[in-house]
Amino acid sequence: MCEAAAYVLKNGQEELLLSDVDIIEPEGDSLRLVNIFGEQKVIRAEIHRLNLVDHRIILVEK
Amino acid sequence: MCEAAAYVLKNGQEELLLSDVDIIEPEGDSLRLVNIFGEQKVIRAEIHRLNLVDHRIILVEK
Repeated sequence: MCEAAAYVLKNGQEELLLSDVDIIEPEGDSLRLVNIFGEQKVIRAEIHRLNLVDHRIILVEK
Repeated sequence: MCEAAAYVLKNGQEELLLSDVDIIEPEGDSLRLVNIFGEQKVIRAEIHRLNLVDHRIILVEK
């Protein structure tokens, strides 16, 4: 499976927001993340970096 | 491997921009995509939807 873990960058540290993420889409000025279990997170953040081969999504709060 | 294909949405059609994408990161008001072969594309676009399980990245031009 090719889902990824989403982290939020805070003070140079990566905090896990949601694992096994399948879908990411903008929702207003936020991002909606949905994982393979249907769990959702909406966060006022933007993408800092995706690294798909490493299964990593790094977000930064706006 | 968990790379994905990146498409640009134009007039309701998805046009392939770059296949086997590993990295996406913002670069000014553009996005820089790098695939597993080191090929790069920079496009003035934003993310419309990521669907990682389906290996699909959909962008829209700004």
